[in-house]
Parts: sequence; structure tokens; C-alpha cells
Amino acid sequence: MKHFLEIRTMEIEQIQAVLARAQYYQQHEENVATVLKGKFVANLFFEPSTRTRFSFEVAERRLGAEVLNFTEASSSRTKGETIYDTIRTLEAMGVDAAVIRLTDNQLLNEFQHQLNVSLINAGAGDREHPTQALLDVLTMQEHFGSVAGLTVGIVGDIAHSRVAGSHMHLLPRLGAKLLFAGADGMVERTEDPIPEGIECVTVDEIVAQADVVIMLRVQHERHAQHMHMTVEDYHQQYGLTKARAAQMKRNAVIMHPAPVNRGVEINSELVESEQSLILRQVTNGVYVRMAVLDTLLGGNNG
Amino acid sequence: MKHFLEIRTMEIEQIQAVLARAQYYQQHEENVATVLKGKFVANLFFEPSTRTRFSFEVAERRLGAEVLNFTEASSSRTKGETIYDTIRTLEAMGVDAAVIRLTDNQLLNEFQHQLNVSLINAGAGDREHPTQALLDVLTMQEHFGSVAGLTVGIVGDIAHSRVAGSHMHLLPRLGAKLLFAGADGMVERTEDPIPEGIECVTVDEIVAQADVVIMLRVQHERHAQHMHMTVEDYHQQYGLTKARAAQMKRNAVIMHPAPVNRGVEINSELVESEQSLILRQVTNGVYVRMAVLDTLLGGNNG
Amino acid sequence: MKHFLEIRTMEIEQIQAVLARAQYYQQHEENVATVLKGKFVANLFFEPSTRTRFSFEVAERRLGAEVLNFTEASSSRTKGETIYDTIRTLEAMGVDAAVIRLTDNQLLNEFQHQLNVSLINAGAGDREHPTQALLDVLTMQEHFGSVAGLTVGIVGDIAHSRVAGSHMHLLPRLGAKLLFAGADGMVERTEDPIPEGIECVTVDEIVAQADVVIMLRVQHERHAQHMHMTVEDYHQQYGLTKARAAQMKRNAVIMHPAPVNRGVEINSELVESEQSLILRQVTNGVYVRMAVLDTLLGGNNG
Repeated sequence: MKHFLEIRTMEIEQIQAVLARAQYYQQHEENVATVLKGKFVANLFFEPSTRTRFSFEVAERRLGAEVLNFTEASSSRTKGETIYDTIRTLEAMGVDAAVIRLTDNQLLNEFQHQLNVSLINAGAGDREHPTQALLDVLTMQEHFGSVAGLTVGIVGDIAHSRVAGSHMHLLPRLGAKLLFAGADGMVERTEDPIPEGIECVTVDEIVAQADVVIMLRVQHERHAQHMHMTVEDYHQQYGLTKARAAQMKRNAVIMHPAPVNRGVEINSELVESEQSLILRQVTNGVYVRMAVLDTLLGGNNG
Repeated sequence: MKHFLEIRTMEIEQIQAVLARAQYYQQHEENVATVLKGKFVANLFFEPSTRTRFSFEVAERRLGAEVLNFTEASSSRTKGETIYDTIRTLEAMGVDAAVIRLTDNQLLNEFQHQLNVSLINAGAGDREHPTQALLDVLTMQEHFGSVAGLTVGIVGDIAHSRVAGSHMHLLPRLGAKLLFAGADGMVERTEDPIPEGIECVTVDEIVAQADVVIMLRVQHERHAQHMHMTVEDYHQQYGLTKARAAQMKRNAVIMHPAPVNRGVEINSELVESEQSLILRQVTNGVYVRMAVLDTLLGGNNG
Repeated sequence: MKHFLEIRTMEIEQIQAVLARAQYYQQHEENVATVLKGKFVANLFFEPSTRTRFSFEVAERRLGAEVLNFTEASSSRTKGETIYDTIRTLEAMGVDAAVIRLTDNQLLNEFQHQLNVSLINAGAGDREHPTQALLDVLTMQEHFGSVAGLTVGIVGDIAHSRVAGSHMHLLPRLGAKLLFAGADGMVERTEDPIPEGIECVTVDEIVAQADVVIMLRVQHERHAQHMHMTVEDYHQQYGLTKARAAQMKRNAVIMHPAPVNRGVEINSELVESEQSLILRQVTNGVYVRMAVLDTLLGGNNG
């Protein structure tokens, strides 16, 4: 593996290898190792993100890499040409890997044949967020032993969710049943259609059937307005209320890619409840990102 | 000590221990030690600050810690819930300490029982700025041998000063006499009242009596306008002019928490004059912050 | 050398020594050395810059320095007094060198006698950008063996270019012939006049005569508007079009200080063409900055 771009184009063996490496780091908690000593990793976030950037940065530093941070202040969409030139410049400076978040769906795929620096997708448009999908799987494996046979439901703005975009190519391949639910107009993915075999159901059906309920962040300002609903209406109709959580299966768990919008897509008390694995996801995110970095830049590339 | 939150709730022995440790670092100038090797410290500034953030960062790096930086771009007050979730997320990533500046007076006190990560107050609202108060004391001790018996006057916007808020619980306990002076309406602390025994006097009385004159930064745009005064009027009425400096006691010194607003609360030439300890305060700030970090995370927690 | 401020005041021996040291790093590619172990370097950018800041940061980290980053969010010109106080504060914290970019032409020259911290000019107003000029020379030396005898043409907004401001005091001293070309009103440097012996010619004359064609970035929004031209008009009249590139001398090369404005001052395909040394300049920029840092702070100060 040279780049880490999209779940959909990875071999299942590659996915399993990264997950195995993440599990290794989960069990071997040494800080500031020397796996990436002398390697330079640049975090290039063309969209704001605190948590994912910190997660990668902790992973990079734990492995002993040198870290460069870049956040585009401008809120305007950065042109592809500019992003290419920025990465190319870093490559010429001797940077070994670039962790990139951007609003464009396809740009990283186009760059992969033009650039020698290792590209790591930290969230691309509404198409894929592959490390998030892998950390979800690592968390499910840790909790349930295996993902095969689980029913996983994702609730929210499926249409614009890159987490859903990655999971729809990951969970079914690992033997899980995947269900989607969202408000009207929030389930159709026009440019990047949902593969066959993934059912779109109601929130209540997911709550009743799923072993894992993944709630997505709702940008309530945008959506509630668009849907002519109040935040409270949205919460009651599509959110994980305490009433809904009580209807979940006996051993079912709650997950969320964070940051959580408390009181909108999920009741605030549920976030750190016994049913919730949300904080464990955060911890596992560091292990998955260490595994990706190690796989691309360290000695674990076999 | 798990957290470092407020002077007012610390035992005098804890304060003395941190000061002693700071003195140790003052005398042992090794860079990039290994006291915090493998520890992660996150600087979370929900209010802009260059100097305090740099001071903490130098302290962290000198002790060998891994440093993560976060500055909230948004100028709007960040909600407590969001701040809590950000810190909780960092905790889940394995961060050991969070150095936090925020506009809220009480939030860190509320968090201390909910969070395992060590919280370090780098300035909370207008209530406390405990490392600033300790570095002032370290500087006075260095200059005068002891704080006991000194008369210290603080001049400026006492009402909104977190430095004053910390000192009013520190200097009297260390045996100093504390005087406050400010323009009309700038001395009353409604939510966090001034303890008995601290006198509110005029600027000229402080200049005449104090061994240490601490000038506070005046946000002149805000205050001058509010007070219907020009900057020059403010300087003449409440600032440390050269004329006032000439009235100071023979061995008295000038201090300022910085950044200095030259020509407003203090004449520009006085900033680096022989009477001034302002730059020495900056140097000592690093030692105090090293001492706090060492106390919470290093081996110095006895 | 204590500071690294302006090409025009450096001895030719100092320039040669830095270039020789850069060549050494070019040939000895070890990462994360210990030349600057325990040294603190602060990057203070009072103007936005991604590439130059990254280049310095890579250089600093490769040499093992501790790095502090500061970027002024505000777009307003920061007052000289504030810049002085910021640097003075960092000096008091124990910072060893400050890499500074600012809009003022003379401020760093004024500071050099007031400050003990080593000052490194990373671009000052429209006057000098000395590390850029040196990396250009390093790249020319690498390609042609020597700069002496070359004809170098710089095309663009000479009036506001700090790169031109440095080169006009560097290339002639190294035995190169320097030509300038720009659109109307873009060649006169009123405050910092062009020394005698440098000819101002047309773009086509430079293309026909130069061994090295350096294209400068055009801020097209500003200039095209001011000049009542479209971007395409500008490109045709003053840019390096493919037609012009075909008129270049057989072994002539294209250079650019970057970031490139593709399709404005240079045809996009030329940027990474065989004639172009633009990416090699980026690589060499790191070596030059390592050499400057080593010269000021490391053991290479003889």
C-alpha cells in the first residue's frame, strides 16, 4: 500500500492487516515509539476539523514522526490545482505522508498517480472517511468479538455522510447487515449510490433490529431550517431519544463518529451511558491511525 | 494535586511546593529534559492568547512533552458543553493534561470531578489566572528575597482582571499588603467580591506606598470610549506616567502581566527601565509553568 | 553572524559560507539531526505564508530544534511596537531564534541592535527575501555549475517583489548579468531603487537572452483590475506562455519563487516541464534554511 484512500478499492486482506495492526497498538500502549523516527507527516485540513486532526496528530507523535500542521483559514472551497500544488510542494520538501481532508470527492483519487508522497484520506467530501469506518469496526470487534453476523444501523444524513459512504463498502464485506435511516431526502446518494443489499428503513426499525446504532451528526441549523422543523421536532422524529434507546435490543450499543450534537441527533445523557461506545471509538481512532501510518511508512508494509 | 485550577482552593503547602519547584528550574536551566517524556499536553485556548500559550508551550517542550495546540478561531463564546466534549475527546485519545483558557469563570471547577485528564487553568474569565499570580510572586521573591512584608499595589481594571482575582487570594496569605486602584467603576468585583483587608485607594497612593506596582492592561478602545476619555486622558489620570514613576519608593519595582499597552496604562520608556521587572516576569513564567506541569504529571507530586 | 537579515549588508564570504553549508546538507540527507537539539526557534509570520513557513519548519525539525509557530490571524498591519514586544517576550522565554515575515521593510533592521535573539528574515515587505535569493542561487549552481557568467531575467511585479529586491544585490556580485521585465508601472522601485547595471527590458528580450527565467507571482485580482486587463490578456502580454517558452535558449531553465499562479504568469504545463527547476527550488529551500539556522545557532559559525 502506498496510499490510503478509499475502502471500496482496498483488498479485504489489506483491510484485515490494518485492523490487525490497530489491535496490536491497542494492546501495546507504548508512547513515542520510533517506528516513524525521521519521517515527516503533514496534516492538511482544507475543511475545519479539531478531533480528526488531533487523533492523527496523537497517532503520528506516538510513532515518533515529525508533524506539520496546515489548516486553511479561508472558508471558500480551495481549488484542486492549489491543493495539488501544496501537496507537491511538501513532497519536494521531503515530507513522507500527507493526511488530507477536503470537500472534493475525487481529487485524492486523481492525485494518487501524480504524487509520490503517501496520501491518507482523512475525510473526502461526502464520499469516504475510511479511518472512521475502520475505527468503528475495531470498536465493534472489540465489543462483540466479530463483526460478522451483526446488524448495524446508521441514522442521519446518509446523503451527505462520508462515514456512510465508507461503511456501505465495508460492513457488508465483513459479513454485517447494514441498514440506513434518515429524514426525507436524507437517504438518497445521487452521485455515489448505495449498493444493492443495503436496506433503507425507519429510525424505529433500526432501533428495534440493530446490534449497533450509529447516529450521525446533524448540522441542525442547516437541516432543521431546510426541513421547516425545530431542533426539538427533529430530535423527536429522527433522534435517539431516551425512549428510543429503551427500545434497543438487550446488548445493542450506540456509536457516533463525533463531534456529537447533544440534544439533536442524540439525547445528551446517552452519550456517556453504559450503552455507548462513543468514547471508546475515540480511543480506537488513534490505534487505527497509528496502524495506517505504520502500514504506509513503517516496517509493516507486507 | 490532580488539577491546577484556583489559588483560592490550594493549600499554602501546595503553593509553596510549586514555587520551590519553579525556583529549582530557575536555577537548573537544562532544555528538553525527559521529565514528561511520552506525556501529551494539549493547549486549548478558547480565547486568543499568544504569550501565555507560548509560555506554556516552551515549558512543555523543555520538559520533553508532546504538545497539541488548539485555538478556537471563532470569536463567539464557545458553549460549555462543547468545551467539555473537546476535553473529554482528548482524554479518550490519551492526552495527559489540558492547559485551558476560557471566558467562563466556573466551568473548569465543574469539570474537575468529571474528567480524569489534568486540567490547568491558563486564565478563566475574570476570576483567576493562577500561574500568572505565582510567576509574579516568584519574581518578587527573587528580587526582594521574600514577599512577606511587601506592599503590592495593582492598578487598572480590577473588576475584570483575573490576575487581581488570583492575587487577592494569594498575596495576603503570603504576608503581603495588597492595595487596589482603578478608574471609576473599575474596582468593584460584583460576582467575585474582593476579600476584606484589601484596600481600594488611588493610583497616586499606590505609587507612594507600594514596593511593587503592578499595572494591568487596559483595553483602551473599550474603556476610553465607555469612560468618555481619550487615551491620553486615561494615561494621565490612571496610567504610570514618568512623573508618577519618579514618585515611587526608592527600591520599588514595576510589574505588568503583559501584553503591555504602551502609552496607555504605562509610559513606553518605563517598560524596559531599570525599575521594571516585566521581562523577568516573562522568563519566570516559563519556570512556574514547568513547575506546575512537573507537579501534576512528573515525579514531583508529593 | 548573529542575524540573517539582508543580502545587501552581508559579506560575500558570509554568503558563500551559507551556500557551502547548504550544499553540504544537499549531499547529506540525514533527518532529525542534533545540530539544534535543545534550541528553540519561533516562526513568526505577520503575513500569511504556508510554503515558506513549512520550509523553515522542516529545516528546523531536521536539525532537531524545538519549533513554535505564530501566525497573526488579523489581516491588519501589525504595529511595529507590537512585533517588537512579541519578539522580546519570546527572547525572555529563552527562544534562540525568530524567523520573521512582516510587511514592513525596515523594522528588522531597527530591531537588530535591540534584540539578542537571532533574527531571520523570511520576507520583509517588498525589500528583501534573502533565503529565497540564496535558494535560487543554490539551484542555479547545482544546474549550471556556477552562477558567474549566467544571464538571469526576472519577470513580473519587480516594484513590489522582495525576491527581486534581494537578487539585485546578489546576482551581480556573483558575476551574473541581471535583467528585469514587467508590465507598465511594475518595474520602478521608488523606495528601494534598482542599482545601476541592471537593465530593464521586455519579457521577450528576457526570454531570448536569459539562461534563467524567473517568473514572479502576479496577484491577478489586484493587478489585472488595476491594469484594466483580463487574466488572459495579462498572460498573453507578460506571462510565460508555451510560445514564449519555445523561444527560450536551448539550455535555459524556468524558475519561480512559488506559489505559482497557473495560467497567469506562467502556463500551467510549464510548471513541471523539463525546462522547469521550480520543484528543485522547493527542495533546495530546505537546505538553505538549514544552513542559515546552522550558521546562526549551530556549530557552523566561523
